Amino acid sequence: MSYKETAVFKAMRPSAQRLPVSGIIEVFNYGRTREGLIPMWAGEGDTPTPGLICEAASKSLADGETFYTHQLGIPPLREALAAYFANLYPRPFSADEFFVTCGGMHAIQIALQMTAGEGDEVIILSPGWPNFEGAAIAQGAVVKFVELQFGSNGWALDLDRLFDACGPRTRAICINSPANPTGWTASDEELRAILEFTRKHGIWIIADEIYGRFYYPDGLAAWTMAPSFQTLREDTDQILFVQTFSKNWAMTGWRLGWLQGPPQLAQVVENMIQYNTSGVAPFMQRAGVVALEQGEEFAVSQLERARRGREIVCSALQPFNNIRFSWPVGAFYVLFGIEGQTDSMRTALRLIDEANIGLAPGFAFGPGGEGNFRICYLRSEQALGEAMARFAEWLRRQ
Amino acid sequence: MSYKETAVFKAMRPSAQRLPVSGIIEVFNYGRTREGLIPMWAGEGDTPTPGLICEAASKSLADGETFYTHQLGIPPLREALAAYFANLYPRPFSADEFFVTCGGMHAIQIALQMTAGEGDEVIILSPGWPNFEGAAIAQGAVVKFVELQFGSNGWALDLDRLFDACGPRTRAICINSPANPTGWTASDEELRAILEFTRKHGIWIIADEIYGRFYYPDGLAAWTMAPSFQTLREDTDQILFVQTFSKNWAMTGWRLGWLQGPPQLAQVVENMIQYNTSGVAPFMQRAGVVALEQGEEFAVSQLERARRGREIVCSALQPFNNIRFSWPVGAFYVLFGIEGQTDSMRTALRLIDEANIGLAPGFAFGPGGEGNFRICYLRSEQALGEAMARFAEWLRRQ
Repeated sequence: MSYKETAVFKAMRPSAQRLPVSGIIEVFNYGRTREGLIPMWAGEGDTPTPGLICEAASKSLADGETFYTHQLGIPPLREALAAYFANLYPRPFSADEFFVTCGGMHAIQIALQMTAGEGDEVIILSPGWPNFEGAAIAQGAVVKFVELQFGSNGWALDLDRLFDACGPRTRAICINSPANPTGWTASDEELRAILEFTRKHGIWIIADEIYGRFYYPDGLAAWTMAPSFQTLREDTDQILFVQTFSKNWAMTGWRLGWLQGPPQLAQVVENMIQYNTSGVAPFMQRAGVVALEQGEEFAVSQLERARRGREIVCSALQPFNNIRFSWPVGAFYVLFGIEGQTDSMRTALRLIDEANIGLAPGFAFGPGGEGNFRICYLRSEQALGEAMARFAEWLRRQ
Repeated sequence: MSYKETAVFKAMRPSAQRLPVSGIIEVFNYGRTREGLIPMWAGEGDTPTPGLICEAASKSLADGETFYTHQLGIPPLREALAAYFANLYPRPFSADEFFVTCGGMHAIQIALQMTAGEGDEVIILSPGWPNFEGAAIAQGAVVKFVELQFGSNGWALDLDRLFDACGPRTRAICINSPANPTGWTASDEELRAILEFTRKHGIWIIADEIYGRFYYPDGLAAWTMAPSFQTLREDTDQILFVQTFSKNWAMTGWRLGWLQGPPQLAQVVENMIQYNTSGVAPFMQRAGVVALEQGEEFAVSQLERARRGREIVCSALQPFNNIRFSWPVGAFYVLFGIEGQTDSMRTALRLIDEANIGLAPGFAFGPGGEGNFRICYLRSEQALGEAMARFAEWLRRQ
């Protein structure tokens, strides 16, 4: 009997019954223990967290910082976040707008608990990172997808489609730019148009700019920041930024992130954190301070690693005329189609068994995703070279 | 202008606007930095996490366990939980029923996301720990309180009142026993009656038995376990246990806990964790394994500390005939009223200013709480002795 037929399953809240199974986790669980497998399915690199960050946590633990702490985050971390952002964007930032969360994922969950409930509509671009959809469904919201279009210039957003999808019940638009898995990166003009539209209609923007430093525009200097709502917004805008330490500082496993929003909402966010997780361990937060204040060299090495990885993976895909892709403008993924491989789950499992490489199946990324595969290229040149050789050999065998 | 009058506040989801401010946090924030203050407001002791538990986390960090991990918890931790419980209760436990969460608080949040949404009713006993109410409101649910009665035998639950409060929209009953802040502890007969009622009506039980080892019945051996749904339930019952490492092993700041429920719901819980927090740091989980497997001596010392603290605090309150309380049967709090002190928030702030002690104001615990004060007595004999001397002197001055 499937678990979906059990009485306890049927007794659950309907939204919980509707929660999608993550296709990425399914593949991950299938291949997790394969010896020698090169995993490129998850959104993480192959580098553990730098020692100096880990040691900050260990020192804090040894110092006995194991008690309840500030629900919004320890003041040094909130201040370090403001200082970090002031270095990235030409505008002032205040510690009062940063709220520490249990990972970027939980920042999204809180943002949705603040904006969209049962029957409300949330707009998500697709193909997209599936956890936006999952988090919205967990809150009972209705997800409306707006599909990106793949053309000769890569993935693109039709703004009219986006605006047409919004109706009276639309409470939030999730904008992940640079995007996982497509690499789509909004232009300043697009962001401005979206912001103006949401202002007019009282819609929230949930802005996921966690890949904002992973940006590869032709002809621009390396490490230019991707276009961002940070440079366009007013203090009173209904924008909630969801962010994470995961990518820049190789801290995926930590579950340490933050929400950034209007300081007037601090009391509400404090309540939300209190009633969701009751805060984040102080020793984790100490590590976050060190990441922000002493982790820049490492963060830049991550950007360089991604840039080289992009080169290796895209160059390897280029020669195959049965592969459809474009060089991603941002983030650290490439999403590509293989002619004739329309069942991405089946093919992803076969690639584990037959090529010992782990790719994420495109169907997991929602409408427009099926028939595609995602590679995360934030890995060593050696591993990526080997993985692409295995993949090329597998392709030739088809 | 109050933040509640800002446009961003008014643009939020109604349930987010309704979220109550935690009265405990408010007092905590007021007195946090007072020199020499003896804090008894929070549900935590004065002992940091034992070194061997902290060292397990530090070792794991040094070993590079900083990547994404099992969404339901690492297998050794789930197995250690099953083994730990098999030592506490006369029944078998399986690793398959334990799901690691970001603290007991988040276990509650997930339990509610699984059971009760917009317009659904959740029953909460009162006075009670306020975070149940907050978590339910965050999900858009309607909270119905059932008041415990204070009489010559202490706090008591009228089962008819509880059952009468349930209607067709009732989705869950939260039972915290032994209870924070009252110390009320359900008898086996009461638990059985509640379980039978919920079976009949398809209602979920969210069981918070985190104080199950802190139990002080007259005439019974020290460290007898409090009555528990664990010994009464069938595998198919709609019971979700919410649990934490916080109390037994002095790990309040860690935010490490678990949900225990029917294994048939594992996939749903995995989805929930994925879309809420994406799991718990592996190095935290390693510490949890050590707590369970090597932390028994410390856990017993916590129980002894609470037992002595109860003696000190209750003995000190006893002589005052303007104080209304009963010796708590479980947990590590005493909730008491002071004649003439009807505004508990005001008095709690005065006690900070005038006696340099931190108590939680009773109004924070919901209906029936106002006019009372909560002391957490999981502290050193010396600190509690000093605190009660300050309190007695303050009382005499009134």
